[in-house]
Amino acid sequence: MGGGDVERLIQMLSRLPGLGPRSARRAALSLLRQPQTKLLPLAHAMEAAAQSVRTCSVCGTLDSTDPCSICSDPQRDHGLICVVENVGDLWALERSMVHRGTYQVLGGTLSALGGVGPDDLNTASLFARVAGGQVREVILALGATVEGATTAHWLQERLISSGVAITRVGHGVPIGGALDVLDDGTLAAALSARRPA
Amino acid sequence: MGGGDVERLIQMLSRLPGLGPRSARRAALSLLRQPQTKLLPLAHAMEAAAQSVRTCSVCGTLDSTDPCSICSDPQRDHGLICVVENVGDLWALERSMVHRGTYQVLGGTLSALGGVGPDDLNTASLFARVAGGQVREVILALGATVEGATTAHWLQERLISSGVAITRVGHGVPIGGALDVLDDGTLAAALSARRPA
Repeated sequence: MGGGDVERLIQMLSRLPGLGPRSARRAALSLLRQPQTKLLPLAHAMEAAAQSVRTCSVCGTLDSTDPCSICSDPQRDHGLICVVENVGDLWALERSMVHRGTYQVLGGTLSALGGVGPDDLNTASLFARVAGGQVREVILALGATVEGATTAHWLQERLISSGVAITRVGHGVPIGGALDVLDDGTLAAALSARRPA
Repeated sequence: MGGGDVERLIQMLSRLPGLGPRSARRAALSLLRQPQTKLLPLAHAMEAAAQSVRTCSVCGTLDSTDPCSICSDPQRDHGLICVVENVGDLWALERSMVHRGTYQVLGGTLSALGGVGPDDLNTASLFARVAGGQVREVILALGATVEGATTAHWLQERLISSGVAITRVGHGVPIGGALDVLDDGTLAAALSARRPA
């Protein structure tokens, strides 16, 4: 199948999440057809990203600067911290442009089965920021899973003595979603979170 | 969303066939989490492939050598040429290991609508090989589309005077396929290609 280098490229592409062997071959072929204008520029973009990417020492996200562009932005509300599980969740919230505060990326959720304990989560900088006295509110934007709820509960216990407001994102019917495809847990959450119309 | 380099990487990945914005973000995140062990090796594999990839001057496939590893393999039957539309088709046949001859990659099919004429197809080396007198049979493995049939017909007319055997791949019910999901054209082809059981 096109020699060692080509074979190796396909194999490495097929290990990316979301790409199987078939789509890896299609992607490789599309790149190999234009080595100078498509393949090399992508390789160089990857090298640039690999050189510059670092973990923000304040919130734990990935960025090319430390502190990251969010933590070092004076326009953001540094008294408001949104706690998320991973960088993908942070990106999703940034795309929606609904949060004007900063973040704390835990890098996971507590999981007895997965062997993830409190020491494995990126929380030291969160507690330090809260102890610093500038934080007004911590929003727990964790997934509506057992692990997410466990982690939220544990964080709440750890933070409650600090006196900052601790909130959780609402759970319920997704906007644009039909009720009859939702699971019982979501329906129950939506009912108990009902508000005057 | 993580600064210029990260943003740029996501954007370039999302242009690959089979990757949308969402899967490009997932792929980028998975690479960025391990810059040294995942991102840089992939970048280097891409550079190596970009440096070494070339078009085989005999058959037209992409490989790191010219002639390609198939055309220069003495174990292959050089009297048997399988004509395919593109490199992806060649790879599919190689994976199935059903063809022990060589190939001719046309790089497209005749298409009046698409503005693809005979001069746009990689056929010169095919005619030269057939004229060389070593070729016994040319298998037309083109898609069962209007363009594929047009191209096969045109090639047959061009090659018929050479005296080599010209064959086409069979069309019919795919192995493992159910009849009731097939289109009428495939069913008609399967019926007319019937053989004694």
